[in-house]
Amino acid sequence: MAEVGVMRVLLLFSSFYIFMYCANSAATDIELDAKAQFTHRIDSLNLLLYTFLLILTVLTIWLFKHRRFRFLHETGLAVIYGLIVGALIRYAGSKTPVLHMAVSPEKDSKYNLSLPPDTLWLRFPNRGGNPPLSNKTYAYAFREEIVDVEDNEMDLKATFDPEIFFNIILPPIIFHAGYSLKRKYFFRNLGAILTFALIGTTISSFVVGALMYGFTYLMPNLKGSFTFLDTLYFGALISSTDPLTILAIFNDLHVDVNLYALVFGESVLNDAVAIVLSGSIQNYGERYQSGTGGFETQAFFRALGDFFGIFTLSLLIGALMGCITAILTKFTHVRDFPLLESALFVLMSYSTFLIAEASELTGVVAVLFCGICQAHYTYNNLSPDSRSRTKKLFELLNFLAENFIFSYIGVSMFTFPKHHFDPGFILAGFFCAMLGRAVNIYPLSFILNLGRKPKIPLNFQHMLFFAGLRGAMSFALAIRNTVSDARQAMLTTTSLIVIVTVIVQGGATMQLLTWFKIPVGVDEEVEMLPYTGVRSVYNSMGTTDVAGPSVEQICGDGEASQRDKQSPMLGEIADQTREGSAGSKLNDKAWLARIWGDFDVKYMKPFLTHARPTLLETLPVCCNPVARILTTTEQMTQENLSRSRVDSDSDLCIDENELSYGNQQRTSAQRSDSLIASGDLGLGSRFVDTRVRVPGPGGKDM
Amino acid sequence: MAEVGVMRVLLLFSSFYIFMYCANSAATDIELDAKAQFTHRIDSLNLLLYTFLLILTVLTIWLFKHRRFRFLHETGLAVIYGLIVGALIRYAGSKTPVLHMAVSPEKDSKYNLSLPPDTLWLRFPNRGGNPPLSNKTYAYAFREEIVDVEDNEMDLKATFDPEIFFNIILPPIIFHAGYSLKRKYFFRNLGAILTFALIGTTISSFVVGALMYGFTYLMPNLKGSFTFLDTLYFGALISSTDPLTILAIFNDLHVDVNLYALVFGESVLNDAVAIVLSGSIQNYGERYQSGTGGFETQAFFRALGDFFGIFTLSLLIGALMGCITAILTKFTHVRDFPLLESALFVLMSYSTFLIAEASELTGVVAVLFCGICQAHYTYNNLSPDSRSRTKKLFELLNFLAENFIFSYIGVSMFTFPKHHFDPGFILAGFFCAMLGRAVNIYPLSFILNLGRKPKIPLNFQHMLFFAGLRGAMSFALAIRNTVSDARQAMLTTTSLIVIVTVIVQGGATMQLLTWFKIPVGVDEEVEMLPYTGVRSVYNSMGTTDVAGPSVEQICGDGEASQRDKQSPMLGEIADQTREGSAGSKLNDKAWLARIWGDFDVKYMKPFLTHARPTLLETLPVCCNPVARILTTTEQMTQENLSRSRVDSDSDLCIDENELSYGNQQRTSAQRSDSLIASGDLGLGSRFVDTRVRVPGPGGKDM
Repeated sequence: MAEVGVMRVLLLFSSFYIFMYCANSAATDIELDAKAQFTHRIDSLNLLLYTFLLILTVLTIWLFKHRRFRFLHETGLAVIYGLIVGALIRYAGSKTPVLHMAVSPEKDSKYNLSLPPDTLWLRFPNRGGNPPLSNKTYAYAFREEIVDVEDNEMDLKATFDPEIFFNIILPPIIFHAGYSLKRKYFFRNLGAILTFALIGTTISSFVVGALMYGFTYLMPNLKGSFTFLDTLYFGALISSTDPLTILAIFNDLHVDVNLYALVFGESVLNDAVAIVLSGSIQNYGERYQSGTGGFETQAFFRALGDFFGIFTLSLLIGALMGCITAILTKFTHVRDFPLLESALFVLMSYSTFLIAEASELTGVVAVLFCGICQAHYTYNNLSPDSRSRTKKLFELLNFLAENFIFSYIGVSMFTFPKHHFDPGFILAGFFCAMLGRAVNIYPLSFILNLGRKPKIPLNFQHMLFFAGLRGAMSFALAIRNTVSDARQAMLTTTSLIVIVTVIVQGGATMQLLTWFKIPVGVDEEVEMLPYTGVRSVYNSMGTTDVAGPSVEQICGDGEASQRDKQSPMLGEIADQTREGSAGSKLNDKAWLARIWGDFDVKYMKPFLTHARPTLLETLPVCCNPVARILTTTEQMTQENLSRSRVDSDSDLCIDENELSYGNQQRTSAQRSDSLIASGDLGLGSRFVDTRVRVPGPGGKDM
Repeated sequence: MAEVGVMRVLLLFSSFYIFMYCANSAATDIELDAKAQFTHRIDSLNLLLYTFLLILTVLTIWLFKHRRFRFLHETGLAVIYGLIVGALIRYAGSKTPVLHMAVSPEKDSKYNLSLPPDTLWLRFPNRGGNPPLSNKTYAYAFREEIVDVEDNEMDLKATFDPEIFFNIILPPIIFHAGYSLKRKYFFRNLGAILTFALIGTTISSFVVGALMYGFTYLMPNLKGSFTFLDTLYFGALISSTDPLTILAIFNDLHVDVNLYALVFGESVLNDAVAIVLSGSIQNYGERYQSGTGGFETQAFFRALGDFFGIFTLSLLIGALMGCITAILTKFTHVRDFPLLESALFVLMSYSTFLIAEASELTGVVAVLFCGICQAHYTYNNLSPDSRSRTKKLFELLNFLAENFIFSYIGVSMFTFPKHHFDPGFILAGFFCAMLGRAVNIYPLSFILNLGRKPKIPLNFQHMLFFAGLRGAMSFALAIRNTVSDARQAMLTTTSLIVIVTVIVQGGATMQLLTWFKIPVGVDEEVEMLPYTGVRSVYNSMGTTDVAGPSVEQICGDGEASQRDKQSPMLGEIADQTREGSAGSKLNDKAWLARIWGDFDVKYMKPFLTHARPTLLETLPVCCNPVARILTTTEQMTQENLSRSRVDSDSDLCIDENELSYGNQQRTSAQRSDSLIASGDLGLGSRFVDTRVRVPGPGGKDM
C-alpha cells in the first residue's frame, strides 16, 4: 500500500520534473537571477529524483525482505528503478535547449594561446532590457573539451560530474569495506586473497585487454578507433568485482565464512588494484602518446613502477593515518567526549583520502587501508558510544552511496548523453569479462591448491567465478573519461555488464548455492560458541604442541552432530580441516604473516591500543623508560583479556597469544610454537575454526 | 603534546599548500589533463586545509574541556584557527594567476543577445603542441557576472561556492536544531518564543535597516551606494542569532530550562524568519528595481504576502513530510531492518529540503519543521537502533557542519576576494546589531510580562539580549550575493560581527551568568525526578481542579530545600510559579495551543505513532472501521503509557492527558480542565516544572 503511494508521488514528481524541462524553452526572456534560481531548482529536482528513487528502493527492499524474497538485492532493485525512471525521462521529456554561443578571442587579447584559459570574459551588450543598461561582463569557467561538435549539447538531464563518484561516493563505500572487514578470516586466507586480487586481476586485465584489442582489430567498423591502451584500460576496469548481492545472501544464509572471506577480501582488494592499474595505464598513455605509439620497454617498466609505487605509498599513507588516529585516541582522553572522538575519527579518515589525492596517489586505496587499521587498532581505543556511532554512520553512508550509484547507473543508461551502443563490442565485452574472471580463478586456484592442504574445492571455485559481479568501481572508472568514441563504447558496455551481472547473477545466487552444494546454515548458535571453549582448546594445543583439534572437539559432540544434521557438507569440511591442520602444522610459507603477527602483538598493539600485553612486558628492559611513557594507566590497570575479547575481531592466533602473555606462564618458545600451530597466515592458509565469530566493526551485518 | 604534533603537521601542510599556489605560475606549459589533475589537487588541498583545521579544533577543544576551561567554545576556537590560517595563506602565499581571456561572439553567431548564454564554445587554435594538432573546441559554463573588471580575479584560494552553505552545510544544522528541540519547554514558552522570533526579528530588521540607511545617507563616501533595500537586507540577515556558545554553557551548567528554551527556541525560529524575510526583500528588489525606485504600497503588500506565504508553505511541507515519514514507519514493519529504517528517515528528511527548494520555497524552514515533526511523531515509531543512529548521525553532522562554517568564516576573512572594509560602516553595523537586539528583547519582554504572570525577570532579559550572537545563518546570507560594493561591505561587517560576538560574548558568558545571578546548577538528579511522581501530582490537580502545585510540592520537601541551597534564585522562581499558576488557571490566550494540544493527542498521535490512546478510543463510534485500519496491533497490545514515557519528550500536559485516556476514568470535562490547569501554551506561558526531563532525540546534549 505504502509502496503504491510512494510510486504515485514519484510519478507525480517525474512528471513535474519533465514539465520543468519543457518549461525551459520559454527561458530566453526571463531575468538572469531568475535563471540562476531556475538552475538551482533543476539541481534540486535532479537530487530529488535520486532521493525518491532511493526511498522507493528502501521501501521495496523492505517488502522483499519482509516476504523473504531473496532473488533481488537492493542494488539490483536500484538499477531496475533507475532504468525505468531513466527511460521515462528520456522518452517522455523534450530535448533541453541549452543555449550556447560560439566565441573567438578578442583582437587585442594578450593571452598566449598554448593552453585553453581557465576563464573566459564575455563583454555582453545588453540589448534586451528596457531601459537599456550598460554593458555587462560575464565570467565563464572551463568545463570540458568538445569532440563531436554536431552532437554535443551539454545536457542538464539527471547527470552529475563523474568526479563526484571518485570524491564523494566511493570513499565511504571503500572505507566501510575496510572498516567492516572480518580480519580474522581475511588474514587466515590472506595468501589466496592476495593471489587472486593482485596476480589474478592483472592477468584478467591483460587477457581482456588483448582479446578485446584483437576483436576490435577484426571488426571493420571498430578498427583503428581503439588503441591497445584503450582496451587494456577496459580490461583493468572490468576486472574489479563487486559481489554485494552475493555477500548479502552469504550473510543471510550463513555460508561458510572462509568462502565469504575469499569473495569479500578479493573484491575489496581488486577494487584497489584495478584503480591503480587503470591509473598507471592512463599515465603510460599520456606520457607516450606523442611518441612512436609502439611498445616501449622503458615506458612499460616505468608504468610498472608507477603501479607498485602508487599502490605501496597509498597503502602506507592509509596505514599511517590509521595509526596516528590510534595514537590520538589512546594518549588523549578524548574518549570522555564521544562526540569529539567520533568527529576526530571521521575527520582523520577523510583526511587520509584527501592527503593521498593531494599527493597524486590513490585516495581510494589509502582509505581502504586506513579503514582496516582503524578497525584493527583505533576501534579498541574508542568509547562504546563512538564505536557504535562510527559503525552505524559508515554502514548508513555505505548503504546510501551504494544504492545511489546503482540508481545512477540505471538512470544514466538513458540520460547520459555520451553512450555509444555497438552491439559487437558489447557482446565481446560480455564474453571477455566472463573469460577474464575464469582465467583469474581457475588457474590460480589450481596453483594455490598445490601448496595449500585444505584445497579450495571445485564448488568453491565455481562460486568464486560466479561472484564476479561488476559494480560501482567499474562504472566510476568507465564514466571518468568519455571524450572519444572508444571510451563511450566502453562506458556503454561497462554499464550493461554491471546491470546484467547485478540482476542476473545476483538473482541466480540462491539457485547456484544449492546447485554447487555450498554448505549453508552455519548456525548463529554454533558460531556464537563460547569463546573460552575455543581458547582453552587452543591453549591445550599450544602447550601440548600436537595436531590441532577437530571441529567436533571444539564444538562438543552434541553440537557437532546437530550441525551435521543441518548441513551435510560440513562434515566433509571438518574432515578436510582435521587433515589440513595436521598436515600444515609448521608451514614455512607463512613466515611473513607469522613475523608480522608476532610484531603486531608484541609492539604495534601494545603501542597503539589499550590491549595487554603492555610494552613494558614486550620491550627489552633497557627500553623501560620509553615503554612507561607509551603505556597508559588504563592499559596497566585493565583486567586481562576482558577488553580484547569484547573489542576485537582480530585474528584468533593473536588473541590466543595475548592470552599467553596475560597468563605469563608459558615460555617464549612455547608461544611461538602455538602461534605456528594455531594459524598460518601465508599462501597455504587452512580452513579451520569456521565457527567462531567475535563482534567487531563489521560484526552485525558482514 | 599531541596538539603540538598536529600543529606541526598543519604547518607542514600549510606550507605545502602555499607551495602549491606558487607552483601554479609555471602551469602555462603543462598539458590540459595535467592541469585538470592539478585543479583536482588544489580542491583536495582546500578540503584538506579545513579538515585539518577541524581536527585541530577538536583536539584543542578536548583539551579545554578536559581542563574545564569554559571561556572558549569550539566554534570560537574554529574561528580563531581559521583567522590564523587565513592570514598565513593571504600573506605567505603569492597571488594566483588565474588565466582569463576576453572573448567576443563570432561574426556568424545566430544567438539572440538578450541573455548571456549558458555555455560558450571556444574554437581554440592549438599552436603550442608539437606536432601541431587539429583545432579543438572547448566548452565554458556560465559562472558569474563580473562587476569590477580591474580587481576581479576569480581566486582559487580556499574559497567555496556560497551555495554550498545553503545546500549542504545549513540543512543538517537546522534539521538537528528541530530534531533535538526540547519540545516540552518549547511549547510551554511558545508564546514568548513566537513573539521574539516573529515580531522581534521583524522589528529588529526594520530598525537596523532604517538606522543603517540613515547612517549611509549621512556618510559622504557611502551615500548613494546603498539603497534602503540593501540596508534592510542587512537588517534581516543580522537579526538571526546563533547562541551556540551560550547554549553549550547553559547545558554544562544546567541553567534554568525555561531560559534555555527561550534562547534556543528563539534562535531556531529567527533563523527561519530571517531567511524568509531576506528572500522576500530580495524578491521585492528584483521585481521593482526597474520602476520608480520609491515605495510602492502594492509591492510592499505583495512582499508581505510572499513572506507569510513562503513561511507557511515551507512549514507545511516540512510538517507534511514529517507526518508521511511517521506513517511509513508506523504502518510498514521497516523497523525490523534498522538500517533500511534509518536510510528511509534520512532520505525523507533530505527530500523535504529538496522539495521545498524545487518549489521555490525555503528548504531551511521546511527542514526545521520536518525535524520537529520527526522528533514528535516518527521518533516514537523507530526501532531503538534507528533512534540512536539518527540521533548520533545528526549530532555528528551538526558538529562538523557548524565547525566547518566557523572555520570558513575565519579563513575567508583573509582569503575571500570580495571583502570591502569600510570602518564607518563596520562600526555602525556593530552599533545597530546591538540596538536591533535590544529593541527586540526589552520592549517585547515588557509587553509579554503584561499578560504573563511569571514575568520574564530582568536578569533573564539581559541574558536574552546578551545571547544575541550572530552565526552561520547571517554569514551564509551575507556571502550569497557579493556583486556590488554595498554587498561586499555588508559581508565584511557581518563576518566581523560574527567573529567578535562568538569570541567575546561567548567568552564572557560565565562571568555574566554570575553577574546577572542566573540560577545555575539545576542538578541532574533533581531533573531526573521520577516521572510518576509528577504525574500523580498532576493527576490530583486534574481531578481536584485547584491551583497548580508549587515546585516544592512536585519535588518533595527534601529535594526542594536541597535545590534552594544550591541556587538561591530558584526559591524566587518557585514563588513566582506558585503565584503564576494560581493566577493564570484559565488563561484564555492559550486557546490555540490548547486546541492543538487536544487535537494532537486525540487524533495526530494515535494516527501517526504507536502511542495510546488509539483512534478507536478517540474517534466517534461511526468511524470505527476506519479507526481499526489505522490502529496497529502494536498499538492495541502495548502496555498503557510504558511506551510514551520512554519515547517522547512531548509536552507534559499531553502526557498527562494520555494518562487520563489510559485510565479511562475521567470525564471529558475533567480532562479539559486538567489541560488548562496543567499548561497554558499561549502568550502567557508559565515557569513551572523546570525539573522534569524525559530523554528524547535531543536528550543527552541539549
